[in-house]
Amino acid sequence: MVSAKMYELGTKKSTIRTIFEFGRKRAAEVGEENIFDFSLGNPNVPTPDFVRDAAVDILQNYEPSAVHGYTVAPGNPKVRETLAQSINARFNTNFAGKNIFVTSGAAAAITICFKALAEPNDEFITFAPYFPEYKCFVESVGATLKVVKPRPEDWQIDFEDFAKLINDNTKAVIINSPNNPSGAVYSEETIKKLAAILNEREEQTGQKIFLICDEPYRELAYGVQVPWVTNFYRNTLVCYSYSKSFSLPGERIGYIVIPDEIAEFDKIFGAVAGAARVLTHVNAPSLWQLVVAKCAGKAVDITPYERNGKILYDGLIAAGFECVKPQGAFYLFPKALEPDDYAFCERAKKYDLLLVPGTDFGAPGYFRAAYCIKTETIERSLPLFKKLAEEYRS
Amino acid sequence: MVSAKMYELGTKKSTIRTIFEFGRKRAAEVGEENIFDFSLGNPNVPTPDFVRDAAVDILQNYEPSAVHGYTVAPGNPKVRETLAQSINARFNTNFAGKNIFVTSGAAAAITICFKALAEPNDEFITFAPYFPEYKCFVESVGATLKVVKPRPEDWQIDFEDFAKLINDNTKAVIINSPNNPSGAVYSEETIKKLAAILNEREEQTGQKIFLICDEPYRELAYGVQVPWVTNFYRNTLVCYSYSKSFSLPGERIGYIVIPDEIAEFDKIFGAVAGAARVLTHVNAPSLWQLVVAKCAGKAVDITPYERNGKILYDGLIAAGFECVKPQGAFYLFPKALEPDDYAFCERAKKYDLLLVPGTDFGAPGYFRAAYCIKTETIERSLPLFKKLAEEYRS
Repeated sequence: MVSAKMYELGTKKSTIRTIFEFGRKRAAEVGEENIFDFSLGNPNVPTPDFVRDAAVDILQNYEPSAVHGYTVAPGNPKVRETLAQSINARFNTNFAGKNIFVTSGAAAAITICFKALAEPNDEFITFAPYFPEYKCFVESVGATLKVVKPRPEDWQIDFEDFAKLINDNTKAVIINSPNNPSGAVYSEETIKKLAAILNEREEQTGQKIFLICDEPYRELAYGVQVPWVTNFYRNTLVCYSYSKSFSLPGERIGYIVIPDEIAEFDKIFGAVAGAARVLTHVNAPSLWQLVVAKCAGKAVDITPYERNGKILYDGLIAAGFECVKPQGAFYLFPKALEPDDYAFCERAKKYDLLLVPGTDFGAPGYFRAAYCIKTETIERSLPLFKKLAEEYRS
Repeated sequence: MVSAKMYELGTKKSTIRTIFEFGRKRAAEVGEENIFDFSLGNPNVPTPDFVRDAAVDILQNYEPSAVHGYTVAPGNPKVRETLAQSINARFNTNFAGKNIFVTSGAAAAITICFKALAEPNDEFITFAPYFPEYKCFVESVGATLKVVKPRPEDWQIDFEDFAKLINDNTKAVIINSPNNPSGAVYSEETIKKLAAILNEREEQTGQKIFLICDEPYRELAYGVQVPWVTNFYRNTLVCYSYSKSFSLPGERIGYIVIPDEIAEFDKIFGAVAGAARVLTHVNAPSLWQLVVAKCAGKAVDITPYERNGKILYDGLIAAGFECVKPQGAFYLFPKALEPDDYAFCERAKKYDLLLVPGTDFGAPGYFRAAYCIKTETIERSLPLFKKLAEEYRS
């Protein structure tokens, strides 16, 4: 009577949801302050005052119909121009408004790209560990997701495995840097090597493979540069969100960058518009379009995230965990203390440490700890991580 | 290289878009004030002050993370409860928060319903004249749209033709009242008869047919009641939007009502959640969820629309047009002065009267005039309509 597939997608409880519900139950039993919930990637640095002030100013001083009216589907033309210029100023690019398609966040941006590109039998490639919704979104457009195996020593790319997965059906490659869940930032060297492989493929076979960069964490990088990928590979689509950079995850605002130099710009732009249409985009929320343009180039203060990451990383290393040092986003992805990461996360629950098994991200044997929580909670969790580690040693 | 279907959907110029572009060109030639653009259904009553005040209050006085954080996919639980109680107070229903799924406007709401319900070979039925995006959205979920022929004497339902289109593949019926483009409001008699046919079908064959009510214009009704359909038929899903009632079309906020008494509530709710997920819903814009809850039960002042509709209707009748008296929305749907509505609308352009051919809405021989424009523009257009009509008489 209903779509069985939609029912399955809407009711299958995710691991994170199950952990969250466990946490709520335990909080009722032992008190909120005794639960150490590292499971949710929900930004906890408050929305900056400049964002609130911009929104209030627009609401109080602009013509209401100019704020709340429909915009054309790709977004308010002035907003698109402002966002393009802001990118140009930071990344030495040469975009204009026509290269920007404003979307309702990054989930919409990437899925619009998938739907715009997908033809029958198409394959998309991504790299473990990866954001599990990619699979849902890629399959929803009728394509298949292939996953390159992880490279745990630094969470960069296993190029040997990548080369094996490319074939004539490969339509696009999805990268997510800074990465959820590993916290890694792909280096310029990684991006150059990736571009070289894709360019070589095009030279040899004529096949154009698109690179879709999912960049909601771009502004959350600690002491490293996040390479701007269109400067390295022409067939690149960049998907951005203000969920983390302005702590606005609930407002659903982001954009796609479609460079002039991409293969057949008009075709891609047209297909993006069509995909947006059937995904019921209409337009990205109009007030937020104006707000993000007014705040272009700014970002939240990331020092609380950086501090949290350092405290958790140092604490885990001191407790005997192995972990690649975080470079971005707000996640650590340490090695579990036994090969079965589900069993490890279950055992951590005894201490009310709520962690997400790496298997959920395509990297068994690891776990994700989101550190976008109170610093004090992290500090109080460290003796518990230590006890947990001691339990494994005894 | 891209999806041919998405490219087609994103680039095929709609009639309204073509008219709009003609209008812009003519405005540059003869001046904005000499263009009489009746083509766009864009609300022109300004967003009410109570909406702006609510938004500013929330931005200035609420905890930012409670305003801008992710909500659960169906919406903020308190918002859902408030919206349910507001419906109960007005329509003598008994909904709770669990019956509401907050969406990014009505386009998302209806498409989520289509996608949740559609199984292979499913057919959806709607009634001409109808909103043309229905076809795009229904086909995007892999189903077929069947259209019941119009009933021009009052734009209610041609039940004889409707009965012919129902078959074993009929999954749902879509109604839109107050109607775009006819301005008709389906009477209680019409709704009762529709419910009787669907109930009879279920009794005879066991087949449950859903009724999807697309109600963005519910609050725009002039001296008539818009029946609340869940009171008449149990397998009903109501899709609502604040685009018109609060003049917030750019902000994308609305909801789906899923009644307890619907066949298999849990199945439907689960499938709605799954459909929302693949349509990249995540959550409806979080600030606007709070704003619409705070303003629940209120609406824009509709007297400007009512006045405009009366002036245009009286003027057209005086000029010799045939037209059903408007009862709701902000459209008139008069008979064209020649059988070919495209030719008629072309001829109207000579007077810079921009009208949309009825063929675009499945009702050839008619045209749509949107009166959500300045009253003064409507008044100045009347002599031109008169001249146009005289041209046909001479």
